[in-house]
Amino acid sequence: MAVYTHLSADDLEALIGEYDVGGLVSAKGIAEGVSNSNWIVETTTGRFILTMYEHRVEAADLPFFLGLLDHLSGKRSPVPRTIHDRQGAAFRTIEGKAVALIEFLPGVSIDTPRPAQARAVGEALAGIHLAAADFPGERPNTMGLPTWRKLLGDCGERLAEIDSGLPDLVARELEFLETNWPNGLQRSVIHADLFPDNVLMLGNRVSGLIDFYFACTDIMAYDLAVTHAAWSFGGDNSFRPAIGEALLAGYVARRPLPEEAWAALPVLARGAAMRFLASRAYDWLHTPADALVTRKDPMVFAERLSFYEAQGESVFHRPIA
Amino acid sequence: MAVYTHLSADDLEALIGEYDVGGLVSAKGIAEGVSNSNWIVETTTGRFILTMYEHRVEAADLPFFLGLLDHLSGKRSPVPRTIHDRQGAAFRTIEGKAVALIEFLPGVSIDTPRPAQARAVGEALAGIHLAAADFPGERPNTMGLPTWRKLLGDCGERLAEIDSGLPDLVARELEFLETNWPNGLQRSVIHADLFPDNVLMLGNRVSGLIDFYFACTDIMAYDLAVTHAAWSFGGDNSFRPAIGEALLAGYVARRPLPEEAWAALPVLARGAAMRFLASRAYDWLHTPADALVTRKDPMVFAERLSFYEAQGESVFHRPIA
Repeated sequence: MAVYTHLSADDLEALIGEYDVGGLVSAKGIAEGVSNSNWIVETTTGRFILTMYEHRVEAADLPFFLGLLDHLSGKRSPVPRTIHDRQGAAFRTIEGKAVALIEFLPGVSIDTPRPAQARAVGEALAGIHLAAADFPGERPNTMGLPTWRKLLGDCGERLAEIDSGLPDLVARELEFLETNWPNGLQRSVIHADLFPDNVLMLGNRVSGLIDFYFACTDIMAYDLAVTHAAWSFGGDNSFRPAIGEALLAGYVARRPLPEEAWAALPVLARGAAMRFLASRAYDWLHTPADALVTRKDPMVFAERLSFYEAQGESVFHRPIA
Repeated sequence: MAVYTHLSADDLEALIGEYDVGGLVSAKGIAEGVSNSNWIVETTTGRFILTMYEHRVEAADLPFFLGLLDHLSGKRSPVPRTIHDRQGAAFRTIEGKAVALIEFLPGVSIDTPRPAQARAVGEALAGIHLAAADFPGERPNTMGLPTWRKLLGDCGERLAEIDSGLPDLVARELEFLETNWPNGLQRSVIHADLFPDNVLMLGNRVSGLIDFYFACTDIMAYDLAVTHAAWSFGGDNSFRPAIGEALLAGYVARRPLPEEAWAALPVLARGAAMRFLASRAYDWLHTPADALVTRKDPMVFAERLSFYEAQGESVFHRPIA
């Protein structure tokens, strides 16, 4: 959470003047975004989020990400529109950094969801999978299984510094996943990072799905597994069955899962937990303890991985209905 | 700049429910405030800034600060109103920390002011001095001359780590200021920290004066000197005479300065520069280089102090008019 780059009032006014959005009224840097800087910008016609891409998002990927927002919002998914400048461009460049202006959406992020909220999130996730079906863009998943192997390999023996049991868990599960990762499941553009932070809600309604910067072309049921791993555990990291079930029920109410996807969910959930274990363990061991960025505890996802290893088959039982 | 405390959606909804401001629509942590956490909160009736006082502001001072906002905004100064809760309280407590809801004001902070903007800032500063004349609250200046001596004394010989010339400058100027600090000048409640960050502007108009957490009862002309020291120097720290003159002209257009205040301004400006040199030098030597808070360079104000020492008499010539 940070604003890495200072934009002066003159910079902001000149930038906003390139868009047909009225005059600048207010701009406040907001404490969101790990790899980019964000401002809430108010103009005489509305409110917007201004994002400056500091480094992680390659400019080459921006047409995919911003085009996806246009496509999904055009289909009435609760996704912010990209505001195009007067020349029609989806992003501009300031001092060598790409910036984009996107729609501001109402809502707040939920820490401790209720089942009705989890159900709505499942429905919204299915909604973007369906709406993305005819999106022409493609982007490989740069955080897929080969990357988990690579990130964890780079950690090497230091994984034991995090927890003495971690090297065994990682070795066993990576081998399991490489042997059992499903082929042939339906693919679409997926969000791939739909944590509660990235969902805005008004009561039980999803008002916004945001932060599509891991979006990629991959197995839709894997996105459901990622969302399950991100939402279904409490503050003490214990599984909340009512939340997990509501999420699945909401998803399949909008997009029924074929038999083979149901069968694969236990493996996909182990993969989802491994994906966040891998990035967090890597960051944990490669980020100075006193850095500006708060490190996220990798053991949260090691525990969820162990949970799915032990309980996945019973958690993802296909509803009888 | 930070949000130090996490507030969940449930916390925020419960808090907003204590005020007659409609339902919660959105809340974003903003990258403002060094010693407190701030959110832009949108409700069904408007927008507000929610501030959580993390430590520096003593709860005992909050009635003064928040009452001052009420008093000044009631006199149509461009100052945010304090929103009182349904019981009439100006602040509430969450988990032992005080929180207040204040009006959101439009405008952006200016990095490089134009003379017309500096003039408007001078006028606005005079306006709050006049509007505060009948404010019943009093608060001693906890960042006055005795504190400069104490903070710099705590730095001791380590001042030379910042710059080899600093110990001599500090010793000479502290002695000068203690000998020459004016008595008997008119006092009111002053802002005491009116840096560009704390002024919101729309074009050449001041739309907001914010962050009154150093406000105190002190010499009004000292506040003008603080504002002069904060605004009249460029990015290379060179004096910008047109800005300094416009600031003074704007102030006296609204509140003429008596002869003795004009005469004291060179000394007051040396004091103003010393005040920020003292706090910055202290923080520089007492904050780890890798801390979350960005340290501000004390030498910026050492240079301004030397400038006022050499040039103060000519800078603060009373206009002939």
